Amino acid sequence: MAMAEKISDISEFGLIQRIRRARRAPNRNMILGIGDDAAAFRLSPGCVGLATTDTLLQGVHFDLRYCSYADIGWKAMAANLSDIAAMGGRPLLALISLTLTGSQRMEDIVQLYSGMRALAARYRVAIAGGDIVGGREFSLTLTVLGEGQEDNLGRRSGARPGDAVLVTGALGDSAAGLELLQAKGLFYRKAGMIPRDQAREARLLKKQLRPEPRIIEAQALARAVTLHGMIDISDGLSSELWHLSRESRAAIIVDQGALPIGSQAVKISRLLGKDPLNYCLHGGEEYELLFTLASKDLSKAGKALKKIGATYSLIGQVAAGRGVWLVDAGGRMSPLEDRGYKHRPS
Amino acid sequence: MAMAEKISDISEFGLIQRIRRARRAPNRNMILGIGDDAAAFRLSPGCVGLATTDTLLQGVHFDLRYCSYADIGWKAMAANLSDIAAMGGRPLLALISLTLTGSQRMEDIVQLYSGMRALAARYRVAIAGGDIVGGREFSLTLTVLGEGQEDNLGRRSGARPGDAVLVTGALGDSAAGLELLQAKGLFYRKAGMIPRDQAREARLLKKQLRPEPRIIEAQALARAVTLHGMIDISDGLSSELWHLSRESRAAIIVDQGALPIGSQAVKISRLLGKDPLNYCLHGGEEYELLFTLASKDLSKAGKALKKIGATYSLIGQVAAGRGVWLVDAGGRMSPLEDRGYKHRPS
Repeated sequence: MAMAEKISDISEFGLIQRIRRARRAPNRNMILGIGDDAAAFRLSPGCVGLATTDTLLQGVHFDLRYCSYADIGWKAMAANLSDIAAMGGRPLLALISLTLTGSQRMEDIVQLYSGMRALAARYRVAIAGGDIVGGREFSLTLTVLGEGQEDNLGRRSGARPGDAVLVTGALGDSAAGLELLQAKGLFYRKAGMIPRDQAREARLLKKQLRPEPRIIEAQALARAVTLHGMIDISDGLSSELWHLSRESRAAIIVDQGALPIGSQAVKISRLLGKDPLNYCLHGGEEYELLFTLASKDLSKAGKALKKIGATYSLIGQVAAGRGVWLVDAGGRMSPLEDRGYKHRPS
Repeated sequence: MAMAEKISDISEFGLIQRIRRARRAPNRNMILGIGDDAAAFRLSPGCVGLATTDTLLQGVHFDLRYCSYADIGWKAMAANLSDIAAMGGRPLLALISLTLTGSQRMEDIVQLYSGMRALAARYRVAIAGGDIVGGREFSLTLTVLGEGQEDNLGRRSGARPGDAVLVTGALGDSAAGLELLQAKGLFYRKAGMIPRDQAREARLLKKQLRPEPRIIEAQALARAVTLHGMIDISDGLSSELWHLSRESRAAIIVDQGALPIGSQAVKISRLLGKDPLNYCLHGGEEYELLFTLASKDLSKAGKALKKIGATYSLIGQVAAGRGVWLVDAGGRMSPLEDRGYKHRPS
């Protein structure tokens, strides 16, 4: 690790020193952060460790024409925190590997870290180390470590026939918002540059650029009930339903009428003449949780989620069998297409 | 995380399936490996967690003209395991983020994993997840998690005035070997392509391409004595002596005559008309441990290291003050230049 002095001009700017100076110990699990060969942390009594990693590349996972460096930092952190949430876990610390190309100014990197730190601080996640290298393509790889109860982890393979299928939040706003903005040819270098009269676009952008991982919801569920199947839907509802179904070796039957289509997705689909259901089923970049529960646990889970002000919907059930099926208003059942959000290299 | 199907041609080849099928649970600390949103692991009773990450880029950290994909995998794993060793820790699991460009064949990636797995298996490290994305520059980011005793971690800030300064192994062979090979214009795409009569060059390459992290040595030390200052010298002895000195706010005095110059470094420096001391002090890419111990612990540490067949040298001492100083045969003391191994983008 050792945020090393590999990029002379960056290290001349004192980047490492600036990152290091801003470090804090936001949770009691941290023992050693940036500055040694490895970070050191302790797990809370009775807890097991959780670890996840994600790489974001310029032109594939983000586009600097309409997101700021702070947005990228936020989103990278959100993607990883969401993976910890999807296990029913609590995030503890993050390691950050950056590949800089020489096109980034010191201020850009400071902004990138401020975006990561803004979300990390909200959940008391420590930024505990990393690596900085010089290359030809700007990218960042975040690794987040967390902890959870060994006997109550949400798993992709945890769905059982008879379970209820639920999802947090409303879906499709992010994909619809992005499509509208692209259709209108609106590109912002920084969210801060959006004028006041474009506040509506800014609201649309927010869910795309500053997604909120469902950490609080996941922990409320883990405390209240026994977790069964669980996954985050960053790649779109349809593809994650298929993941759950395959890993759990069970069928999932989704009630089309119960799907929580976001209000923006509905409005925008009218504007663009599209079907809002598509945004809800196949959009992506939303860090909601898809999970299944034994039906006996439904009311307990509902109470726990309502207590923290979370929205959620019961969208279907798990059955013996294979595949993912959509039931429409007329009761007709058809196989759901497995078509998740795909990152396209530009 | 979720080794996702982001690169269609790679996923068509069934890469994820092949990686996943080869997974094992090589240690009892693993609970969940590849296949869920996050890996899950437990720490041994009384242990704290350790985490480190490193990014390797083509053209900066490795050159496919004279190393194979298996070598790259090995080296990436070695660099991270060495960081865990430098805390006195035991490695448990690795997460691997790959950026593929489309120039890699399925066989290359299988070789990359086989190199990582060869070293990982030796120390019972589980390959527990990761991410695969498509980009324009081939790179890999490894994160390794390990565990250690909270009250006995080796730290960069742990050197105390009066401590003895030691280093494992012999130094300079790797840098000298690389320089000889470059001087002779020998480039190998794969180590396997080296003919039998070039066995000598192959031996030189081995320390460069297949460095051995000092996991066993670190754990023998942690069991035998109280660890003080500790760091791995992947960036060269001189720069790591300076790191120790700065982080510990103490002076380090090195006895030039006690430095363990590798026998290959001595031979090659004669051939090339160079000073072998330079290879030893400023070479890099060697994963030896530099550490300090209270003088009362010296004989106990020596016994523990000899018992496992490890070589080590007492090279100096820590004193009150600042800086790193070299004492030559005549007793003259001069400041040691801080000039570590630098990766140069090609």
